Amino acid sequence: MVLVRHLCANPGLSRADLAEAVGLTKSTVSLLVRELLDEGWLLEREIVATGDLGRRPTPLFIDPSRLVLLGAEVDIDSVRVVTVSLTGEVLSRASANHGSTKSVKSCVAALTAAMSKLCKQLDPARQRIIGIGVGLPGGVDEANGILRFAPNLAWRDVPFGDLLREKIAGTALAGTPLFLQNEADVAALGELEFSAPQASDPLLYVSLNQGVGAGVIVGGRLLTGSRGFAGEVGHIVLQLNGPACSCGRRGCAEALIGPRAMLQRSDEQDPALSPLAVVRERLAAGDAPTLKAINKAGSYLGMLLQNLAAAYDPARIVLGGAVVELGDAFLKPALKTLNDYAAAANLEPPLVQTSRFGADAVAVGAAALVRHRLTRNVLVPVPEGQAAARSTRDAGIA
Amino acid sequence: MVLVRHLCANPGLSRADLAEAVGLTKSTVSLLVRELLDEGWLLEREIVATGDLGRRPTPLFIDPSRLVLLGAEVDIDSVRVVTVSLTGEVLSRASANHGSTKSVKSCVAALTAAMSKLCKQLDPARQRIIGIGVGLPGGVDEANGILRFAPNLAWRDVPFGDLLREKIAGTALAGTPLFLQNEADVAALGELEFSAPQASDPLLYVSLNQGVGAGVIVGGRLLTGSRGFAGEVGHIVLQLNGPACSCGRRGCAEALIGPRAMLQRSDEQDPALSPLAVVRERLAAGDAPTLKAINKAGSYLGMLLQNLAAAYDPARIVLGGAVVELGDAFLKPALKTLNDYAAAANLEPPLVQTSRFGADAVAVGAAALVRHRLTRNVLVPVPEGQAAARSTRDAGIA
Repeated sequence: MVLVRHLCANPGLSRADLAEAVGLTKSTVSLLVRELLDEGWLLEREIVATGDLGRRPTPLFIDPSRLVLLGAEVDIDSVRVVTVSLTGEVLSRASANHGSTKSVKSCVAALTAAMSKLCKQLDPARQRIIGIGVGLPGGVDEANGILRFAPNLAWRDVPFGDLLREKIAGTALAGTPLFLQNEADVAALGELEFSAPQASDPLLYVSLNQGVGAGVIVGGRLLTGSRGFAGEVGHIVLQLNGPACSCGRRGCAEALIGPRAMLQRSDEQDPALSPLAVVRERLAAGDAPTLKAINKAGSYLGMLLQNLAAAYDPARIVLGGAVVELGDAFLKPALKTLNDYAAAANLEPPLVQTSRFGADAVAVGAAALVRHRLTRNVLVPVPEGQAAARSTRDAGIA
Repeated sequence: MVLVRHLCANPGLSRADLAEAVGLTKSTVSLLVRELLDEGWLLEREIVATGDLGRRPTPLFIDPSRLVLLGAEVDIDSVRVVTVSLTGEVLSRASANHGSTKSVKSCVAALTAAMSKLCKQLDPARQRIIGIGVGLPGGVDEANGILRFAPNLAWRDVPFGDLLREKIAGTALAGTPLFLQNEADVAALGELEFSAPQASDPLLYVSLNQGVGAGVIVGGRLLTGSRGFAGEVGHIVLQLNGPACSCGRRGCAEALIGPRAMLQRSDEQDPALSPLAVVRERLAAGDAPTLKAINKAGSYLGMLLQNLAAAYDPARIVLGGAVVELGDAFLKPALKTLNDYAAAANLEPPLVQTSRFGADAVAVGAAALVRHRLTRNVLVPVPEGQAAARSTRDAGIA
């Protein structure tokens, strides 16, 4: 998979280029490339005759047409599923509500149904799903497929991997490799895997929904922390003794930035509408106190971004999630605050962008998790003291 | 150096154990061990006869007596130098003031003099310095040996590596490999390299002096960020529109936690004393407003630690620096605040300790930087897309 990763980052390399890049002989690389062509990972492009003397080396590319990644987002009341090519193009999408009961069972059922629907749209003669990725709204123990804690769903220690595997056992997806991770983490991987290679490490994806979190990539890998809670930046405290947060603490970023912070007159609130839907309505109506509250929440987002810049020194921060759709009313005060902090210290602010995958960011990111795990096994974090041995052993082939 | 790292983490392994651990043949390992014994990295312990049949394999250890690490701390008005064995024992120490002029030249001169003094105490027939590490009070471009910015010294873009190399050119240290890094970063490496191996990743060292910063270790490596500013946690903002910070921003952790925050009656302040010295005096005298201010600063330290826990999910946080010496009056409210945040969210707080190297933490850490870089070259961060190739090439030998 070393060759695949090289071609992800540098499309168009020849066998000779690859041999030089990975330090293997040209004949070994030719054999490996043959296998990868047969399996559907790579394709060769025709050589255009240029009139030059001699045979030009054949450029190799990742094949976007045969192997397919299946990515899914589990949100608080819905699931969204996409099929994605190896090069990051979304081929199809489906979504479904899994009800307001917050039941794991109905969520897994809705997810399986949506995935099966997309599977049926593939060309079985040509296309094959090589892995399923799922982004979950909470802390995930990836190795064991367990959702540790999803506060907004009140799920704790759910063996999501086993439940999903059981449910797909009777479908065409039975036995497909399955990868689970936190929603912001997978969205960060989506930005890493499917963007043009550029110097953007560390890379942060800040997820702004009912909950606030971040996926953090350092050295090309997810920073997950000692218990899978790294990047829980919604619980960076921005105000001593501030407003109560859903986590039980006071003054957390989530309580100051999230849609609930933009509502002041809870007495008027329609319980059938989500807080964000209410805010969107009032913003559209030009409601002055709401505009003021959004502006204040945006300033706190700027303060959070300053804190993330101080903690990680990111090359790039990507903002995603439903709250971003509030647009300039929310994002302008955030960027102003961040830029003011940078200017006060005479430093360049970090690059801040919105996600180019929009509402698909988490589902596409879950697909990216599959590509990341399948092609990067050489780079799994290794325990202290065994690193060198592992990299000698695993780095070798294809 | 793979073998050296293995023995750092697992003293007493035999050649056969090492061969199995690194995946090389026993005869190759025997050859490499022979070299490392000759060079002074390893030693063999005698086998104690136990009456068992057959020859027992000889246990191998890192040799603490021959190769020596030279570590230095550059502080705002002083330098501190230590010689340290490969296993982390401090062999000797020296310190010197470099004057209040904040001149780079006088600092480099004081540093060279202190290092030369310690060199003369070594046994030239037996001991040899294999590298010099320096911890600097600011952001460091390690690859180029440049101190980017040290706010409390008002130094910007100082080619510290070149200046020091020039100064030691005429001494016994001429040509010795030199490594520079931020003071909190090296102190974090000291905790990593010279502690019993344990599951403590991510590991944070929070440096509490006139400035506040952190060294962050993730996956056994320093997190330095895109410009070398990662871990600048003194500039995590804890109060919107809070008190002015030395960096130019308002409300930074440093402005709320540092010794200046513990002084309220600046009119009474003796300019010949450092803010911390004044605080220490008043604390000893039981001055009530100072006690209250220290308590408040401690609470803000607790808020900062909560924010670091949310950002990195560390397995261990080590506190070091001169402000830690204020003791319980400062640390108790910090831990109470941190534990209250954890309890509110029904989570375990991270493990918090003070540095076991005390006032030597940065100098010993600078020595650890030398061991880290010399034995871990296989793990230098590699640019995206070239990782696998590098690890195949570099992982190989010794």
